[in-house]
Amino acid sequence: MGGSGDIAQELRERVAASPFHTDFGIRIEAAQEGTVHLRWSATAAHRNLQGTVHGGALATLADVAMGLAVRTTVGPGRRHATIELGVHYVRPATPGELAAVGRVVRAGTQIAFAEADVTDDRGRLVARATATYAVTPREGD
Amino acid sequence: MGGSGDIAQELRERVAASPFHTDFGIRIEAAQEGTVHLRWSATAAHRNLQGTVHGGALATLADVAMGLAVRTTVGPGRRHATIELGVHYVRPATPGELAAVGRVVRAGTQIAFAEADVTDDRGRLVARATATYAVTPREGD
Amino acid sequence: MGGSGDIAQELRERVAASPFHTDFGIRIEAAQEGTVHLRWSATAAHRNLQGTVHGGALATLADVAMGLAVRTTVGPGRRHATIELGVHYVRPATPGELAAVGRVVRAGTQIAFAEADVTDDRGRLVARATATYAVTPREGD
Amino acid sequence: MGGSGDIAQELRERVAASPFHTDFGIRIEAAQEGTVHLRWSATAAHRNLQGTVHGGALATLADVAMGLAVRTTVGPGRRHATIELGVHYVRPATPGELAAVGRVVRAGTQIAFAEADVTDDRGRLVARATATYAVTPREGD
Repeated sequence: MGGSGDIAQELRERVAASPFHTDFGIRIEAAQEGTVHLRWSATAAHRNLQGTVHGGALATLADVAMGLAVRTTVGPGRRHATIELGVHYVRPATPGELAAVGRVVRAGTQIAFAEADVTDDRGRLVARATATYAVTPREGD
Repeated sequence: MGGSGDIAQELRERVAASPFHTDFGIRIEAAQEGTVHLRWSATAAHRNLQGTVHGGALATLADVAMGLAVRTTVGPGRRHATIELGVHYVRPATPGELAAVGRVVRAGTQIAFAEADVTDDRGRLVARATATYAVTPREGD
Repeated sequence: MGGSGDIAQELRERVAASPFHTDFGIRIEAAQEGTVHLRWSATAAHRNLQGTVHGGALATLADVAMGLAVRTTVGPGRRHATIELGVHYVRPATPGELAAVGRVVRAGTQIAFAEADVTDDRGRLVARATATYAVTPREGD
Repeated sequence: MGGSGDIAQELRERVAASPFHTDFGIRIEAAQEGTVHLRWSATAAHRNLQGTVHGGALATLADVAMGLAVRTTVGPGRRHATIELGVHYVRPATPGELAAVGRVVRAGTQIAFAEADVTDDRGRLVARATATYAVTPREGD
């Protein structure tokens, strides 16, 4: 009861309810416990002055992928918040289709660790990210 | 011959020419060699599901502040690119006015280090960031 | 009743009881709530193949400075553990006297953030570090 | 003609010439271009006050693994220096045998990125690290 299709669907509904996620424009391709696959279209509007995708946009994409991956492992009565994010910009990205995979490295009762890879439409690694999350009981629960 | 007002004005023109920066909506309050002060309005559209400003937006703000600070120390014949970005989310931020100060820690001929503080409208630290930049001769120069 | 001299003395006793700290050889110069000043002698034994102080030794120095700073803000019934450490190597260091200042950026009930500067005997910044700590009730208390 | 055994042997000779590496006590198990496998014995001397292996020692182990991996991809006429190191402490480690695998993520002409996993003798992930290196022509060459 609760296969990976359900997890992806639940995340899609969650994302649809978030103004930031909707505006940023990610698409959830697949999800299972601990791993989320996203797609995102970098457009001309995401270019910096050098014509490549701005690092802030890539950081956002990676953070979203990792946060959703953590979400799949944290029970409904708990919330998570990013406490630390690190991104390595391995290769410049130009506007086009990007893919991001977020993975949980370890999810404990108080702290969760995750990582993400961002690749371009030729499968080349563009950015690699890591993050740490605080996991806490949901207020009011 | 090149006071701090000129530096701020030059950065404003630079930012006005960048689709990403214009869309994100920062305002350059002041700038001198090695330091840039920004303002940014976090709106309802930047909220995550928990109602606080999304970490990706804060990472973007910090990256922009640091990148512009590095820009003030890199000569016109050279370009800089973020190779690594780290953000600590010290305190949740709610929509409203945020300030970011980007500072160059050290700018060498090949590598530059910078840091940024993001504070809310009560002056409380919201995020602290560090970044590393590759500095290279501008292609074609 | 608990001035800064007492804090430094308490940390010195703590450090004296730790095999790792004793072996590494730091000296606590001063300490107050949230800030700790250390001295450490980098010797020929800490050199890497390029003759400069190994990054692992500088990471250790910074981590010790930050951990002790966090210790000054965490009550006796609680423990702290590093969950994330980041170091920027701003300038190569050669063997000699180094100073490290660890500072708490924010200490919450579950998470603490700290930063450290490492400087050489000419006062030049050698490394800058940040870290995140999990703060938990001491087991058995 | 330069098989992986030669690479491991070359690294062993290199490490034997470095006071820091010799003192720290790593053993090179295997190496090929871009990847290095190490073993390291954490002893009672590496314990912090909580009885677990100090984060500085784990940071050193990870940095050594990544630096040697970068070394395998950088030609003899070039040198590399760590400019940034990040470590996530995923699980406490107790004294005993630890393994570290350093891998090059991307090695460019000026910048190299690497990552490392540290695991305990039960194969559990203890720490995960990332680092950035500046690659420069060797002085005097």
